[in-house]
Amino acid sequence: MRMKLSKMIEHEGSRTRIVIEGVTPEIDGGRFPIKRTIGDKVVVEADIFADGHDVLSAALLYRKEGNPDWIEIPMEFLVNDRWRGSFVVSELGQYQYTITAWVDSFRTWQQNLAKKVEAKQDVSVDFLEGAQLIEEASHSAIKRETGTIRGWVETLRSREASTSAKAKLALSQKVTKAMNKYSDRQFASAYSKELVVVVDREKARFSTWYEMFPRSCMSKPSHYGTFKDCEMRLPYISQMGFDVLYFPPIHPIGYTSRKGKNNAPTTKPSDPGTPWAIGSQEGGHKALHPQLGTLEDFRRFMTKAREHGIEVALDLAFQCSPDHPYVKEHPEWFRWRPDGTVQYAENPPKKYQDIYPLNFETENWQELWKELKSIVLFWIEQGVRIFRVDNPHTKPFAFWEWLISEVKADYPEVIFLSEAFTRPKIMYRLAKLGFTQSYTYFTWRNVKWELTQYFTELTQTDVREFFRPNLWPNTPDILNDYLRDGGRPAFMARLVLTGTLGANYGIYGPAFELCENRRKDKESEEYLDSEKYELKQWDIESPKSLRDLIARVNRIRRENPALQSDWSLRFHSIDNDQLICYSKCTEDLSNVILVVVNLDYRYKQSGWVDLSLEELGLDPGQPYSVHDLLADVTYRWQSSRNYAELDPQKMPAHIFRIHRGVTKSKN
Amino acid sequence: MRMKLSKMIEHEGSRTRIVIEGVTPEIDGGRFPIKRTIGDKVVVEADIFADGHDVLSAALLYRKEGNPDWIEIPMEFLVNDRWRGSFVVSELGQYQYTITAWVDSFRTWQQNLAKKVEAKQDVSVDFLEGAQLIEEASHSAIKRETGTIRGWVETLRSREASTSAKAKLALSQKVTKAMNKYSDRQFASAYSKELVVVVDREKARFSTWYEMFPRSCMSKPSHYGTFKDCEMRLPYISQMGFDVLYFPPIHPIGYTSRKGKNNAPTTKPSDPGTPWAIGSQEGGHKALHPQLGTLEDFRRFMTKAREHGIEVALDLAFQCSPDHPYVKEHPEWFRWRPDGTVQYAENPPKKYQDIYPLNFETENWQELWKELKSIVLFWIEQGVRIFRVDNPHTKPFAFWEWLISEVKADYPEVIFLSEAFTRPKIMYRLAKLGFTQSYTYFTWRNVKWELTQYFTELTQTDVREFFRPNLWPNTPDILNDYLRDGGRPAFMARLVLTGTLGANYGIYGPAFELCENRRKDKESEEYLDSEKYELKQWDIESPKSLRDLIARVNRIRRENPALQSDWSLRFHSIDNDQLICYSKCTEDLSNVILVVVNLDYRYKQSGWVDLSLEELGLDPGQPYSVHDLLADVTYRWQSSRNYAELDPQKMPAHIFRIHRGVTKSKN
Repeated sequence: MRMKLSKMIEHEGSRTRIVIEGVTPEIDGGRFPIKRTIGDKVVVEADIFADGHDVLSAALLYRKEGNPDWIEIPMEFLVNDRWRGSFVVSELGQYQYTITAWVDSFRTWQQNLAKKVEAKQDVSVDFLEGAQLIEEASHSAIKRETGTIRGWVETLRSREASTSAKAKLALSQKVTKAMNKYSDRQFASAYSKELVVVVDREKARFSTWYEMFPRSCMSKPSHYGTFKDCEMRLPYISQMGFDVLYFPPIHPIGYTSRKGKNNAPTTKPSDPGTPWAIGSQEGGHKALHPQLGTLEDFRRFMTKAREHGIEVALDLAFQCSPDHPYVKEHPEWFRWRPDGTVQYAENPPKKYQDIYPLNFETENWQELWKELKSIVLFWIEQGVRIFRVDNPHTKPFAFWEWLISEVKADYPEVIFLSEAFTRPKIMYRLAKLGFTQSYTYFTWRNVKWELTQYFTELTQTDVREFFRPNLWPNTPDILNDYLRDGGRPAFMARLVLTGTLGANYGIYGPAFELCENRRKDKESEEYLDSEKYELKQWDIESPKSLRDLIARVNRIRRENPALQSDWSLRFHSIDNDQLICYSKCTEDLSNVILVVVNLDYRYKQSGWVDLSLEELGLDPGQPYSVHDLLADVTYRWQSSRNYAELDPQKMPAHIFRIHRGVTKSKN
Repeated sequence: MRMKLSKMIEHEGSRTRIVIEGVTPEIDGGRFPIKRTIGDKVVVEADIFADGHDVLSAALLYRKEGNPDWIEIPMEFLVNDRWRGSFVVSELGQYQYTITAWVDSFRTWQQNLAKKVEAKQDVSVDFLEGAQLIEEASHSAIKRETGTIRGWVETLRSREASTSAKAKLALSQKVTKAMNKYSDRQFASAYSKELVVVVDREKARFSTWYEMFPRSCMSKPSHYGTFKDCEMRLPYISQMGFDVLYFPPIHPIGYTSRKGKNNAPTTKPSDPGTPWAIGSQEGGHKALHPQLGTLEDFRRFMTKAREHGIEVALDLAFQCSPDHPYVKEHPEWFRWRPDGTVQYAENPPKKYQDIYPLNFETENWQELWKELKSIVLFWIEQGVRIFRVDNPHTKPFAFWEWLISEVKADYPEVIFLSEAFTRPKIMYRLAKLGFTQSYTYFTWRNVKWELTQYFTELTQTDVREFFRPNLWPNTPDILNDYLRDGGRPAFMARLVLTGTLGANYGIYGPAFELCENRRKDKESEEYLDSEKYELKQWDIESPKSLRDLIARVNRIRRENPALQSDWSLRFHSIDNDQLICYSKCTEDLSNVILVVVNLDYRYKQSGWVDLSLEELGLDPGQPYSVHDLLADVTYRWQSSRNYAELDPQKMPAHIFRIHRGVTKSKN
């Protein structure tokens, strides 16, 4: 709380003269941390000003959490009372930053002196004032500097030294430097908040996900796939260039009200049920589905995956099948109806009788929170460090904030991906509360203006400080109209978009690479014969597979740091609404990628790109070369306007690397 | 401070599920109050959402300061999680407002019931659930309602009543209303802040100022004008329609280092000195210049002014002449130089030897603050309620916040006008700290894009919540290039702009109405023979005077409420850069004013105005009439495009009142 205004006169703090405001980055007045990954820079700006015309100094202060001492970085004055400073985060965990500023009496005196000397005014008293300021500072100087400083005082007070000699000394760098060191900060203003940066590992910023149902990795038709079978699939996934393998829930599946093929309300004995109906007599969220294998098999699989450069991500779906042990052990965690049944999940008129939501409004909420945390810790103990969180928007915000902060306090390397497909403010809130990455509306953004508007919002506004997009062109729940209608060319275009617009992206495979585009019905986005309700043997060796294109796009991502972050994204004008053009680059412009995609999966489209060359580090007067990393062809371009033509039947996209100066064409 | 996240599990507060954020209006996270005048509406909006799909209810709470009880206004859902509510402020002083929201279990149940009934699902258990919710609510119902409510419970539980009868009852208005009244708010979310509205009197929003040196109201040439002489000037000022008469300082003027005519460093005995060099042996800030009259004369003058509908505003210039009693009584309030002199005001290379700034960094700052407050209270005791504050940006921000809040706690009707011509962030800060009105950059905004941009910022952004512009085309310190070069037509154009762009405006007269446009030199904006340094006898009866035009503009302002506030300002397109067009209207569109001004003081200019008719409450299909209140001519307009032509030699502006439907032309 601020002090009562009438009390201001009783507080020494009221003597500070400087205002520090408009600090960026700062999320919701400092209520939430900003996010960075190791090695990132935090650029901090603020409006800093005082009454009157005195010269100010300002410093950015930062420290790793737990460290009592601040590291001080001088801030630089920009324009219109705006100041800037920056620091680099080099360790996992949390950093704090804040700002301090003070009226610099000596620099004020120097500035006035210089002006008076310039105007040839009498400055004899000014020198005495300067001597006094230096003398005061000398009291706090370290011993071996005291002598020098006293010498300056004497010179400024002496009758012998000339005005010009005194002025030269008073304005010299050595005096300025010393006085800066010992400046009087008794009435320095401290910014009222200590802001927080959460520092994640690099994968939080740059990751390539593959979602796969392990039970479908069957060795023989209709045999429930096991972790051992999954091992055989690792080279396939690794060759495509994925580094995160995400499994839908791998726990025992309930029997009561189990859904059949295509979500049928009745089942045959062979129906495996949906993995999201978690829990049976065989165990709950800490158990493995017995047909997948043992904990030992799972750990072994994770080790094998790591050998292929792949990290395993698990699904956190905090809900239960009617057979989950919790229902008997903790009936108070569920909502009981007056007829003595438990309320199953519903979104009237839709019913999900095979799933009981947890009742977070239970009086026993604290036990529930602790139990759910213990689930996360259980899998962390098995070696899991990435969790995709199912429907976080249907559980309380406070729970997520607490859970993620608790887990990351001990395991700052853990990544939580928020699978919230809901209203914008809720998606952003979840990201602010701590989710490392978030699903996006990309899944339904198919036309140029939508993509441009949405990705500008995600990457060029404050949103980027807390919300890290992870783009998915498809999921087991969502086969959108564009993919359904467009087939293979549409899948190719979406692949390039997802892999270049998003440093983090994922596909649900093998449905994606095999261009599976059959819908259950017209009303929903559900796949026909959805893998959620049945075992599926995919023909991954099909010649129609996009696996080679995926491997190429992912190699381009690995080899081009420009594509490993989203902050540099810029859209460029192109005079055809079916073509979209954008670039990404590294801060030093040593790596610049330009992408052009044909959004029309039916027809060849062409247009003139209009680049802003200076933003791309190009000299408008010089020719430059663009190397299409998909087709491995190099073009020589002359000016900002260039022709592009893309045939969706062949390749609906260019991914150019731009080279300053002209390199010899490879073709 | 927020609680440590790990502690969240220990707090019942963590069970609240609703987020309330993005509250508007809210200045700097609630650090500063917003401003309104009596009778104004405060429209409050917020993003309000929870996890899941439950139905929410939200209420805006407000109260007059000192009142322990909140008044509750239901908020209305707009779109995309945005809610709105409003209240009217009817008393001077401070109001508080905040928001509360809760998950409405009964309305959630009603919504689900309606969907299930629609889908013809079995709802027998749903009725039992509803009965349970109603039963729980009945415990908190007032006695005479209990019977009715129990009846509803029985109906919902009865086996006899039909499904449709039960559904009709459950969804009825009477049940909804009762359940709304007794809704369970145990886990309601309260917005974390109580925001403040400062309510001023109407003159804070709508005032018309006239600045005049009382000593120049001389009865005979070269006789020092007195308050009694000023009485003779009241009919003149009143006839022009001004309601605030602002006097530069009326205190004794120092003799030491007094400046002569045109700011000369030496004086003749007859030179009266600048009124801003306050204090002499005759007294300081609580004394009157003996030649102006006694305190009794001053009070009498104020009474006379009030009889003419005019309120007197004084100047608060917290600085001293070398002869001010404070210099001897409180030497510690000044900055002493090593040569034993007091530091006079300077802005190197400029020197103001006749003025000593107060040293707010003095160790005796508390006594200084108290003394300055006692000056304000002294003049309040004499009846003054409006203060124009000289150079507030050269005194500490904390001082102003304290002073204004102290004064307004006892005298909420007091108006403080900030005369800060400085950098934008400082001007805005002073307004946030409590100044009622503020000088603006209008003085130097002469071309169309500048005026459009600046007044859009002032009136269509958050700035309007705390910064009330008071526009001055000239001041004793500033004769701008436009007025100097343009002469009479320029003065006329600026008069219309100032009086219609600003609900609060003022002129420095008689220099303004007499179109005084002679500069001292090319370098500065100082008047030649500035009234600051000499007595001036103005020929107020001159036939060249703009007094009639001023009277007309001010009458238009009084008669048209659209011009008494700035919030409705909209610029309209006109295809000539020398012509500017804008409108103001009342909220109910009963009064709509359209202004067109020719900014070119040399040539006749014409162009086509393009109005957005719907914003002006006009039916695009219907003709309408516009009545020029300056020329008293009515035109019939047909569409959004209309021709305007203005000759600066005749009248450089139209001030139209728009009438829906066509009224008979007066000419």
